Amino acid sequence: MSTSASSSPQAGSRPGGRSARVRAAVHRAVQELVADETSEPLTIPVVAARAGVHATTVYRRWGTVGELLADVATSRFSGDIVVPDTGSLRGDLERYASSLAKDLGDPDTLALVRATLGSGGEQGAAACRGERRQQIEAILERERCRGGEPPTPEQTTDALIAPLYYRAVFTDEPLSPEWTRGLVSHLLGD
Amino acid sequence: MSTSASSSPQAGSRPGGRSARVRAAVHRAVQELVADETSEPLTIPVVAARAGVHATTVYRRWGTVGELLADVATSRFSGDIVVPDTGSLRGDLERYASSLAKDLGDPDTLALVRATLGSGGEQGAAACRGERRQQIEAILERERCRGGEPPTPEQTTDALIAPLYYRAVFTDEPLSPEWTRGLVSHLLGD
Repeated sequence: MSTSASSSPQAGSRPGGRSARVRAAVHRAVQELVADETSEPLTIPVVAARAGVHATTVYRRWGTVGELLADVATSRFSGDIVVPDTGSLRGDLERYASSLAKDLGDPDTLALVRATLGSGGEQGAAACRGERRQQIEAILERERCRGGEPPTPEQTTDALIAPLYYRAVFTDEPLSPEWTRGLVSHLLGD
Repeated sequence: MSTSASSSPQAGSRPGGRSARVRAAVHRAVQELVADETSEPLTIPVVAARAGVHATTVYRRWGTVGELLADVATSRFSGDIVVPDTGSLRGDLERYASSLAKDLGDPDTLALVRATLGSGGEQGAAACRGERRQQIEAILERERCRGGEPPTPEQTTDALIAPLYYRAVFTDEPLSPEWTRGLVSHLLGD
C-alpha cells in the first residue's frame, strides 16, 4: 500500500478532480463578490453559498477570509505579466509598465487588491505585490547581458512600480500611457 | 423658540457633549480592533460592543464599516504632518518625507490604512491619502517664493509619496532614513 500511496501523492487533488473544481468555484465566487461593491461583507459562509459548496469545506481548506483572499490574489497575480523582450531596456520597461498599468487600471483587479490588503495582512500584501521584483530583475539582467548599465532593482521599484500602485490604489487619477512613459523617462534620466 | 434654536445651532453636538464622547469612543474602539490582528472581523456590532455604545447609534451615524473606517482614517491623517519650513527645498522635502516615513512605519497606522482600503472603497482610499497633495503643493509653493524652480506636484508625488506608501503597504522592507533621503536626492536630480 505504501508503494501505491507514494506513486500517487496527489490522489484526491489531481487537476480536473473534485478538489480543483471546488478551488475554481470558490476563487470565482470571491472575485465576483469583491467586484460587486454593493454586496454584503465578505465572509466564508457568503463565499461558500455563492460557490455552491459547504462552508466547512472552505473553512477546512482556507481557514480565514484573509487567507482565502491572499490565495485568490496570488493566483491572479502569478504570471500575469510576461517579461517583455523588445531589444532595448527602454522598450522593455515601457512595455512592462504599460501591462502593469492596464492590469491595475481594471476595476475588478483594483477591488481584489484593496480587499486583499484589508483582510490578508502581510500575506495579502505579498500576494498583491506578486512577482514584480523578480520580473524587474529579469528585465534589468537582460540589459546587463546586452552590455548596458541599468538602474538597480530598488531604483526601478521606487520610480516605476510604486507610482503605478500608488496612483491605482490611493487616487482616482488615470494610469494614462503618457504618464506611464514619463515614469520610464524619468527613471532612465531623460 | 426659533431665536433660541438659531443661537445654538450645534446643540447636542457641541465639543465635549455626548455626541463628541460617542465619536471619540467609537474611533478609539476601531483603532484598537484594527491594531489587534487576532480579533474577529470588524463589524458594527463588534465596534459598538468595544466602545460601550448601542449598535443602532453607530449604524445611524456611520451607516457601514467602510464609512466608519474612512471617518477614522480622515481624522487620523488630517493635519498629521506639519508642513516644514527649514529654509531650503531639500530640507523641507527631507523633513516631510521623514515624518511621513515615521507615520507609515507605525504598525497601528499601517493596519488602519490596510483595513480602510479594504472596506472603504474610493472614500477610504482618499482618507488614507490624506492631505499629501496639499502639503506637497505648499512645500513647492514656498520654494517658488524663494525664487527656486521646484519639480511639479505630480513629479514629487511619483518620486516621494508613492515609494513611501508602496514600501509601507505592499512590502516588508523598512522605510529607513537613508532610503528616504535617497528618494529626495533622486527627485532633485543629484
